[in-house]
Amino acid sequence: MSLSEIERLIQLLAKLPGLGPRSARRAALHLIKRRDGLMMPLADALSGAARSIRSCRICGNLDTGEVCGICADPRRDSSIICVVEEVADLWALERSGAFKGRYHVLGGRLSALDGIGPEALNIAALIERAGDAAVKEVVLALGATVDGQTTAHYLTERLGALPVSITRLAHGVPVGGELDYLDDGTLATAMRARRPA
Amino acid sequence: MSLSEIERLIQLLAKLPGLGPRSARRAALHLIKRRDGLMMPLADALSGAARSIRSCRICGNLDTGEVCGICADPRRDSSIICVVEEVADLWALERSGAFKGRYHVLGGRLSALDGIGPEALNIAALIERAGDAAVKEVVLALGATVDGQTTAHYLTERLGALPVSITRLAHGVPVGGELDYLDDGTLATAMRARRPA
Repeated sequence: MSLSEIERLIQLLAKLPGLGPRSARRAALHLIKRRDGLMMPLADALSGAARSIRSCRICGNLDTGEVCGICADPRRDSSIICVVEEVADLWALERSGAFKGRYHVLGGRLSALDGIGPEALNIAALIERAGDAAVKEVVLALGATVDGQTTAHYLTERLGALPVSITRLAHGVPVGGELDYLDDGTLATAMRARRPA
Repeated sequence: MSLSEIERLIQLLAKLPGLGPRSARRAALHLIKRRDGLMMPLADALSGAARSIRSCRICGNLDTGEVCGICADPRRDSSIICVVEEVADLWALERSGAFKGRYHVLGGRLSALDGIGPEALNIAALIERAGDAAVKEVVLALGATVDGQTTAHYLTERLGALPVSITRLAHGVPVGGELDYLDDGTLATAMRARRPA
């Protein structure tokens, strides 16, 4: 049975996050059934994106140019830099529409366990950018995890010498979230940070 | 923000079964990070498979030749044909290693609700194959669903005039299955089909 070409496709699909061997087989059959509508377009989109997408040399965002659309957009506020761990976080903030400044993608977070130190992250470029006289504020939009908060502490120290204000995202009850299902830490933080109604 | 190339990739990935918009974004970032190790190989595997994979003209299995590896293999028993709904079922039976005959892929099952009649399935070719003097047995390996069993009934009638024995997969307790979690129908069937220990 010379299914090697299908098997190779399944093996590669199974490497995608969220797909295991079983769902990769289903995905392969789904693709083969939709050869012209999905399989060829996906092949083209993958090779096209692999050729053209690169990291923005300023902020680390992914886009097709040397400088990403956000860094190149003159309408974005260049006095405020929002620091995120990954491009996915940048996308999430863009979807929220709540931020109109520039970003800086660290490419991860400090982790003693995984042996990720400051030199492994895009930190030197951040310090340099934050030193620009035009920059007034750096928002640390890092994950509310131990490693994320460690990274935030580290960056707060490193940025402390610069004349910029350093802020963090507020913690609290997620919009639409039921108190009953929230963890104690979030509830306690939300209670301490309570505001006049 | 001209993320159109990434967005197009995400939209196509989100059409795969098992991936939603959120996991498609994760998958796209995963791919972009592994450009040479995963993204380009996957693009090549997709376009290669799209070009070369076709349905076997005998049984409907997917393979790279006009006749699939199973139909072309002289060691497979051509006196027994196993009828399955989809290629995925054929793959599952091949993984089990329990069947050494030939297959016939219907391409679906009869469904009054979805308006799928006998002419929409690969049934005429099955009747013709089963009419060959060399064929002694047709195994109906169809799903234990209402539509699957309707299809099995229909095929039993259509094949009834031919000098072949028509069999079905046994129902019963799945290997490793706990009785406690089994549905009543399966348990009742397993009890009625009980065998000497």
